[in-house]
Amino acid sequence: MKEWWDLQGKTDMWKFCFAIPLLTIFAGALIAQTSQPGAAPASTLKLMPMPSMMQTATGELPVTNTFSIALKGYTEARLERSSQRFMRELAGVTGLSIGPGTTDTSKPMLVATTDHASLPIQEVSEDESYTLDVTPAGATLHAANPLGTMHGLQTFLQLVQVTPTGFAAPSVHIEDTPRFPWRGFMFDSGRHFTPMDVLKRNVDGMEAVKLNVMHWHLSENQGFRVESKAFPKLTELGSDGLFYTQAEVKEIIEYARDRGIRVMPEFDMPGHATAWFVGYPQIASGAGPYKIEREWGVFDPAMDPTNEATYKFLEKLLAEMTALFPDAFFHIGGDEVNGKEWDANPKIQAFMKAHGLKNNNALQHYFNEHVEKILEKHHKTLVGWDEILAPGLPKESVVQSWRGQDSLAEAIKLGYRGLLSFGYYMDLMHPASAHYGIEPISKNAALLSDDEKKRILGGEACMWSEYSLESLDSRIWPRTAAIAERLWSPQSTTDVESMYVRMAAESRRLEALGLTHRSNENRMLRRMAGQEDIAALRTLADVVEPVKEYDRENLHGPGSLSTPLDRVIDAVPPESDVAREFSADVDQWIAGKFQDAALEKKIRAYLVRWSQNHEELAPLFQSSFIVAEVEPVSQSLSSLGAAGLQALDYIDKGTAAPQDWIAQQEALVKLSQAKKADLLLMVGAPIQKLVEASGLSAK
Amino acid sequence: MKEWWDLQGKTDMWKFCFAIPLLTIFAGALIAQTSQPGAAPASTLKLMPMPSMMQTATGELPVTNTFSIALKGYTEARLERSSQRFMRELAGVTGLSIGPGTTDTSKPMLVATTDHASLPIQEVSEDESYTLDVTPAGATLHAANPLGTMHGLQTFLQLVQVTPTGFAAPSVHIEDTPRFPWRGFMFDSGRHFTPMDVLKRNVDGMEAVKLNVMHWHLSENQGFRVESKAFPKLTELGSDGLFYTQAEVKEIIEYARDRGIRVMPEFDMPGHATAWFVGYPQIASGAGPYKIEREWGVFDPAMDPTNEATYKFLEKLLAEMTALFPDAFFHIGGDEVNGKEWDANPKIQAFMKAHGLKNNNALQHYFNEHVEKILEKHHKTLVGWDEILAPGLPKESVVQSWRGQDSLAEAIKLGYRGLLSFGYYMDLMHPASAHYGIEPISKNAALLSDDEKKRILGGEACMWSEYSLESLDSRIWPRTAAIAERLWSPQSTTDVESMYVRMAAESRRLEALGLTHRSNENRMLRRMAGQEDIAALRTLADVVEPVKEYDRENLHGPGSLSTPLDRVIDAVPPESDVAREFSADVDQWIAGKFQDAALEKKIRAYLVRWSQNHEELAPLFQSSFIVAEVEPVSQSLSSLGAAGLQALDYIDKGTAAPQDWIAQQEALVKLSQAKKADLLLMVGAPIQKLVEASGLSAK
Repeated sequence: MKEWWDLQGKTDMWKFCFAIPLLTIFAGALIAQTSQPGAAPASTLKLMPMPSMMQTATGELPVTNTFSIALKGYTEARLERSSQRFMRELAGVTGLSIGPGTTDTSKPMLVATTDHASLPIQEVSEDESYTLDVTPAGATLHAANPLGTMHGLQTFLQLVQVTPTGFAAPSVHIEDTPRFPWRGFMFDSGRHFTPMDVLKRNVDGMEAVKLNVMHWHLSENQGFRVESKAFPKLTELGSDGLFYTQAEVKEIIEYARDRGIRVMPEFDMPGHATAWFVGYPQIASGAGPYKIEREWGVFDPAMDPTNEATYKFLEKLLAEMTALFPDAFFHIGGDEVNGKEWDANPKIQAFMKAHGLKNNNALQHYFNEHVEKILEKHHKTLVGWDEILAPGLPKESVVQSWRGQDSLAEAIKLGYRGLLSFGYYMDLMHPASAHYGIEPISKNAALLSDDEKKRILGGEACMWSEYSLESLDSRIWPRTAAIAERLWSPQSTTDVESMYVRMAAESRRLEALGLTHRSNENRMLRRMAGQEDIAALRTLADVVEPVKEYDRENLHGPGSLSTPLDRVIDAVPPESDVAREFSADVDQWIAGKFQDAALEKKIRAYLVRWSQNHEELAPLFQSSFIVAEVEPVSQSLSSLGAAGLQALDYIDKGTAAPQDWIAQQEALVKLSQAKKADLLLMVGAPIQKLVEASGLSAK
Repeated sequence: MKEWWDLQGKTDMWKFCFAIPLLTIFAGALIAQTSQPGAAPASTLKLMPMPSMMQTATGELPVTNTFSIALKGYTEARLERSSQRFMRELAGVTGLSIGPGTTDTSKPMLVATTDHASLPIQEVSEDESYTLDVTPAGATLHAANPLGTMHGLQTFLQLVQVTPTGFAAPSVHIEDTPRFPWRGFMFDSGRHFTPMDVLKRNVDGMEAVKLNVMHWHLSENQGFRVESKAFPKLTELGSDGLFYTQAEVKEIIEYARDRGIRVMPEFDMPGHATAWFVGYPQIASGAGPYKIEREWGVFDPAMDPTNEATYKFLEKLLAEMTALFPDAFFHIGGDEVNGKEWDANPKIQAFMKAHGLKNNNALQHYFNEHVEKILEKHHKTLVGWDEILAPGLPKESVVQSWRGQDSLAEAIKLGYRGLLSFGYYMDLMHPASAHYGIEPISKNAALLSDDEKKRILGGEACMWSEYSLESLDSRIWPRTAAIAERLWSPQSTTDVESMYVRMAAESRRLEALGLTHRSNENRMLRRMAGQEDIAALRTLADVVEPVKEYDRENLHGPGSLSTPLDRVIDAVPPESDVAREFSADVDQWIAGKFQDAALEKKIRAYLVRWSQNHEELAPLFQSSFIVAEVEPVSQSLSSLGAAGLQALDYIDKGTAAPQDWIAQQEALVKLSQAKKADLLLMVGAPIQKLVEASGLSAK
């Protein structure tokens, strides 16, 4: 899967991947999106993911508090709940007092027709398509089964916007079906436990952007998180009391099913399992005793694949867990076994020799084969990370690739089905554009035959939870919407600018669903400031980003459960919208040869605010140890603001800035770009451009 | 209780009451609060309500992620849950990763000792006191029973603040006990249903500020909100499907008990009961059929007090409801019977004549006596609004006064116990200082004997829910904290300035508990703007307040369930902090004869922003019908900003402004103070002062 030392050597590969979209983003044509003359341009509709086919038309359907929905055709309790949720969400995105007592059910404005039931246990390739027509007189939604109906309802909610005359949905004809059948999101509830309410609101978010698999990483070195009746010590001794009861697991599965989402559990084995061994050391390869790991990283403990007791244990546990989780797929992790306990155990070494197992890889595959047989008995398909790939792995298995499209292609070529998670790790703090640019069918995967490509089921965004607690939502949203679009929409949907506009709208809608990715930031900033006025702290927070990938650890050594997660890095979103927009403004102003006065005014206003901000923030350096940590970043920002202002003055005067001044400012910019307090100041590059321009050009 | 027509004539009385604190706020001495030399001044501790006795000392107790708490003496499951919640809340107010795996339980930093259990069903005058000592080496909390322990834990949480070196609680010795034993908050779940999660987070808020009675208004013309197994049609036909199951009611009662809070239900009768009659017209005085009311107001339907069937019905229903709610008190409402159905019913008229009931008041008291007998059978004490007061009302009854301290005193004089809710209606949008100034033992109540005064049990803040839905939290918090302090702290605790500083800190803590009074505003503003950038809208929102009392209805006629609650009035808090602080700054600057340059800079910065704001907000007038509504308010703000700037220029130049210019500006100010879009622009008064000053004084 991943730990920072694994990716150390791969940083260049990441950069390479992220460079691709920057070169190709404007090449994708929105071929299937057409507009009637006078209709709203397709690009103004804030849909995300973009539908596979869409035609806009003139007019719009007003949405008032008499709005009601009618279900026709096949129906079931889940659809009823879905339509009630739709009404609540419609109230949420408009603020209208829509509901019992106001809606006019005699004249439904949205009629949703469903042909038949979906499968009792949702399967990976079920029909999720729907057709949605909106006209000024009303809207009709049609789908084969409830999955499509629920998707269509979310699309309708995205259509509703504030207009000059009221809330309304524009006239449109949509025929929509996903590109990939497996669009997942992985929650790591192993490292930091995820409370039920946090899971639920994030599942709401998944439904909003049409993700359909909740991959639930439930066991780790730091905790075994599901109640086992067969092996109660798994949670009694291995969870710090932080685990899901079986009733809670069922509640989540039901909650997800209600939103068209499958739940696939992951029990990571034979490594990443220290927490299991606290209660059951007999299945481990070392002598024990074991205790729950408190740091992050790869640890030595691993199950003993040579011990029959291990398989007896797993048979009983997996019988229980495969019954608890109805999904056809079962993830066994399989990543990052360092083999040290195996090497150190003479019995294991003797066994390997006796059975001709040449190395630890072979031993792990011996283990996997046994586990696979147990799963097969319970009619489950095995899923694992890249490392499970080896001769003898049954062809039905699914390989989830954190290594990349080439690694994915390798698994596909061998006849397996595959999922891409490379490039979709939310905890690495990359911008949405980077995730958006990760195309599953690219590089070696693009060279596969059409039949082979069909075995690429889709992908999964992953949220590893070492460094997220109250900031979890802001690490997930809204960027995950970009990945959801990559996996749902046509491959040609690649316009980054349009993506950012639509993602901002979806971000507002996600807030209405109860997600806290925006609201939490101010709350945290007020807390660290110890006061209500956070204007200056906010100005700074708006232009910094957390350090990327595993730099937080690189700067401090392996993190742990005790790493404070209450700092500025924890409050700010992974991506600075202000910096991105300021940078675009500067580019545009320079490209326009400094003629756009309104743009210059806007740029100058930012620079003035930044140049004065350090002084305004100063009192908090004295009163709050947390704000004090970012003093050097604040100092840099004000220096950059001043440099930018001077550059503007040179440009306005039409005299080229002196070379020594330019050199000084460039040194300043360079200085500003060093990591401080785990933060990256994101406006160095555009300021550098202004400084350069002030030396070269006269207005 | 109240409806706007009832209070029409009483507006002047309100104004009179609110004037009192403005005259006396600096007179209260914090006699019981002393400081050791070198210790933190008591005023810097952000405690709310202020403890009855407090001594600060030097030093502080660091709070880190190894922090742990130990319970000693008597314990029970509720206390264990309370200490776990305390740890979560400590994590919430600091952001520290405190919890299983980090805390050091071998060396508890806070030791809480409880002497014995509290009563199985919490009673009105139980001991709630506690003693808390914090030293640099650790903290000790001591209480007679869990109620005091839980209060002490909340006080400790309030002590924890961000400091230059980390999070810490200052050294302090606190001996604390409430002034009044009944400190309530009334939720109106009748008009707008309150979802379970909303109730729960507000009960968390109640615990935070040591309120101890949840008064739950559960039936109204618009809905009967509790499942009755005896009379299922009460909710089937009378609730729009929006009601609490009995399991949910029990869940709330348990949730409140876990926080030291009693739950007293209110079933309003014989009026305010239309929703009952939809399913059970036989207990009404009219012919029916009835339907759920969709508008707000006082309606004609009332129960038939002359019909034995009514009492049969109530006997059965109250048997069920008194069993469901364990509290010793049972509220029967009793307010606002207009008597029209009684007047129109010949049978009722004949009955009155036959029984010597001279008027409708007498008939209502005849009804109350019957209901009281039923309650007595179930060992419940009757509580009702002012109107229940009449000869024959049993002396054990409690009168809740919405009319004022004189009305309260009248009930007390007659031997009853009383509660004050006059001046504590949160939905009327008054500033916290106004509520804070409402002293229960004032006016005629101050003239009572000491024994009589003891029968004033306390008071209740009330949140009538005609106009609150998603804005509910912001109508309740943080202002309710001011009332909580009035009811808990010594009568001498009256410093308004200190109250506002401490209330702001408590507001941040309430957010950490999950309340949405701050976060929701930005979310709503972004929604009505239809975009992420709400800087200009926010600038305007920061200086307006909702119209007061029942003006929203006065402007539009009676409101209803359909009244849109998605406007700017619904997003902004009841009280503008910016306007209050700007006004204080202007006063101080003028008082200082214009010499304070830093203050002038601050004032000018506001004026500049306001003067430019209308232009910046302009694009949204075109795109959003909601923002378009506030265009005249925005125009006014920018005019005021410009007027203020000109005034400053005159003052700076030292030349008196011309009289005709002054007259023009004063006209402008006057214009700005007219209600527009249900909003009050709150910076007219200080601008007026600047304009006046510019005409009179030279710097």
